Amino acid sequence: MTASTDTGVSQELLEAGRRAYELDREHVFHSWQAQGPFKPMTIVKTEGSYVWDGEGTRMIDLSSQLVNTNIGHQHPRVVAAIQEQAAQICTIAPQHVNTARSEAARLIAERTPGDLNHIFFTNGGADAVEHAVRMARLHTGRHKVLSAYRSYHGGTQLAVNITGDPRRFDSDYSSEGVVHFMPAYTYRSYFGSETPEQETERALRHLEDMMVLEGPKNIAAIILETVPGTAGIYAPPPGYLAGVRALADRYGIIYIADEVMAGFGRTGQWFAVENYDVTPDLLTFAKGVNSGYVPLGGVAISDAIFETFRDRAYQGGLTYSGHPLAAAAAVATIGAMTDEHMVENAERLGREIIGPRLQEFKAKHPSVGDVRGLGCFWAIELVKNRETREPMAAYGGSSPEMNQVVAAIKAAGVLPFNNFNRIHVVPALNIPDELLIQALDVVDRALTIADGFVTG
Amino acid sequence: MTASTDTGVSQELLEAGRRAYELDREHVFHSWQAQGPFKPMTIVKTEGSYVWDGEGTRMIDLSSQLVNTNIGHQHPRVVAAIQEQAAQICTIAPQHVNTARSEAARLIAERTPGDLNHIFFTNGGADAVEHAVRMARLHTGRHKVLSAYRSYHGGTQLAVNITGDPRRFDSDYSSEGVVHFMPAYTYRSYFGSETPEQETERALRHLEDMMVLEGPKNIAAIILETVPGTAGIYAPPPGYLAGVRALADRYGIIYIADEVMAGFGRTGQWFAVENYDVTPDLLTFAKGVNSGYVPLGGVAISDAIFETFRDRAYQGGLTYSGHPLAAAAAVATIGAMTDEHMVENAERLGREIIGPRLQEFKAKHPSVGDVRGLGCFWAIELVKNRETREPMAAYGGSSPEMNQVVAAIKAAGVLPFNNFNRIHVVPALNIPDELLIQALDVVDRALTIADGFVTG
Repeated sequence: MTASTDTGVSQELLEAGRRAYELDREHVFHSWQAQGPFKPMTIVKTEGSYVWDGEGTRMIDLSSQLVNTNIGHQHPRVVAAIQEQAAQICTIAPQHVNTARSEAARLIAERTPGDLNHIFFTNGGADAVEHAVRMARLHTGRHKVLSAYRSYHGGTQLAVNITGDPRRFDSDYSSEGVVHFMPAYTYRSYFGSETPEQETERALRHLEDMMVLEGPKNIAAIILETVPGTAGIYAPPPGYLAGVRALADRYGIIYIADEVMAGFGRTGQWFAVENYDVTPDLLTFAKGVNSGYVPLGGVAISDAIFETFRDRAYQGGLTYSGHPLAAAAAVATIGAMTDEHMVENAERLGREIIGPRLQEFKAKHPSVGDVRGLGCFWAIELVKNRETREPMAAYGGSSPEMNQVVAAIKAAGVLPFNNFNRIHVVPALNIPDELLIQALDVVDRALTIADGFVTG
Repeated sequence: MTASTDTGVSQELLEAGRRAYELDREHVFHSWQAQGPFKPMTIVKTEGSYVWDGEGTRMIDLSSQLVNTNIGHQHPRVVAAIQEQAAQICTIAPQHVNTARSEAARLIAERTPGDLNHIFFTNGGADAVEHAVRMARLHTGRHKVLSAYRSYHGGTQLAVNITGDPRRFDSDYSSEGVVHFMPAYTYRSYFGSETPEQETERALRHLEDMMVLEGPKNIAAIILETVPGTAGIYAPPPGYLAGVRALADRYGIIYIADEVMAGFGRTGQWFAVENYDVTPDLLTFAKGVNSGYVPLGGVAISDAIFETFRDRAYQGGLTYSGHPLAAAAAVATIGAMTDEHMVENAERLGREIIGPRLQEFKAKHPSVGDVRGLGCFWAIELVKNRETREPMAAYGGSSPEMNQVVAAIKAAGVLPFNNFNRIHVVPALNIPDELLIQALDVVDRALTIADGFVTG
């Protein structure tokens, strides 16, 4: 497959895109970038699993943007719901009852596991994490938060400190009460494990050691992405999360499952914890809840934590909590996901197409060190040497080799998600099989380039 | 005027509202509330400066919700723009160029004063403040933040600690690097001032003392709501902000103007700093930028601070930065405000209607201790005793007396904004004169009830 120009993109759209580029460089300050050398891609049109760039070139979206458009782009049912809600009530203050918000809360609470029956809405994932931690602190009367290295939990000050990747380095003053521990990550075990079973046992022992040494009575919460996302889609080894749940119970610590990226069908279940039969005390969500069509996030709250705030005011809030337009988009998104069986489809795509194909990549490409994932949530880890597992780009950085691989994927008409030495395969849950296969073919060919950099 | 049932509200809407109320109590966790006793009002319809409650009663919105619907409810131009953008591109990752985002950035940068030419978009006011502080810290290499008592800056952990009102108490671990100083607040001067001129001089001396005693080389930023909002709409006395600007310059401290509530026409200027002829280094906005029709906030950044991040990556970001739907709503809102001269109208309403009428309230109602404001941004401060200035409700609390006054206003068909011992008059900038006068008549009558509680 090669990049193709779709004649459906009008000259007017392309012209608007060129003007947008100029204005962007003049006035838009971008996330996570050095602003000067940044050369962003213009997107002038989106539809399903396609996006069109500033030249009108159609590309397959294998990124779901920032792993948020779980239902693909411009789903007609959700677009219509936004338009209808806009015609009714765009916004209302959070203290007033609104039909869209109430219905969204019901639909989410019905899908969250266990007794996570109460929904606090935020604008995105970062503030969901901020509020979940506050709830845990106020509920327990404790302060410290345990969080894993190699994790991402959001960009605001507390959330970025909870984050265990290099994005926190510029903002880490060791003052947030956050203590980081080593995650269970079998491929690059911090415990010298050679099997997932060993990793589970050793990582849990390490976690309990950390709890004991930090003082359990000081620890309000442990927060974990159920399947760490941008940090590498390293699904927990069997028994790990059940062990975390047991440790949290043993020491009276609140277990927060961060499902901002992994939730809402991404892993082939409504929530990723369902894959591991555990129920957290608090669960954070965003992205997939309405595919990011309107900014929305939130915290699902257990009955026990709700009780803490039954007669005591929760000292937290925001103007757009439970925003009607965002909530209406969630109602339509959850409806579409349910009626079109997208969650089941994600599970099938992972089991029938992505998983087997990635295993094939590993068998045939010496640059592929590890492949892993579930549902529509997969990582390919590239290495220079399979024995030493030397990554194709260092932790926290990029490399000319990775840049070349990524550029080849883009040039062939696929928009990938990449991080450090990894290519992530994170399509919409409803990507047509043939498009997914086309995109994987492109990745396959690009891996041949990566093979050329293998030294071991 | 009495509350009236508008026959335009269908039985279907009312039925949906009743169902929404049940679901809300079952599943929605509300901001800033004890969840158990909370009895929220249902809103089933909104239009211009009207809202309709769960019984179908039409009310005049004198609150602009949380002081965000500056253009009123359901402005047709903005509703249409949201619908059109929804049909085009609902969402796109922040690293890609998008036409709505570029145009919103241009329109905002054209209106912000001085060289605030670069726009970083967030989801709301709290994360705007979080990122502004981070930019100031990284730009200066310093850590401390000076913030005023009696202020509000947002609900996330850093933002709520920067906040100077009781909402931070539950989350204040003295670990955020925030140092609070006494604001310039003439009516309840912390410096024993008897005139605005005295207050300016003494408050600036206090601020400089704080800077010196905290160590200027440790102070990254001073943040101030240009006109403090929920904290009391106490506009700064003449010369105060110019003095703050001079002190910030003298000590190399970044001056952040928080205009989340005061910006976008609320004070009768596009930005409130224009009333005081000062230009900050960073300016935070949200609410009025698109009247909250879609969640949006941001930071306007000076050229000098932009330079810091020209070749160095800014370590901050969020999935929905520059969200197309939110940006399109901003473009339409700013267009409507400009073409319909709403900013000029806000200035006129304050000067011709609200200001004179509130002065009349003060002259005739012994319960009115102070009235103050500008544009569509006014506070009435109720006291039990004009001599002692004993507030009708204590700082941080409510009182049966205030509850009775607020209930009377609502019962007469006006939705007020109230906080502690204050009633705020914060209508949409385009409220029809006759509606505003009707609403003020209602407030006038309710103040007679307040007069009955005066003891001095």
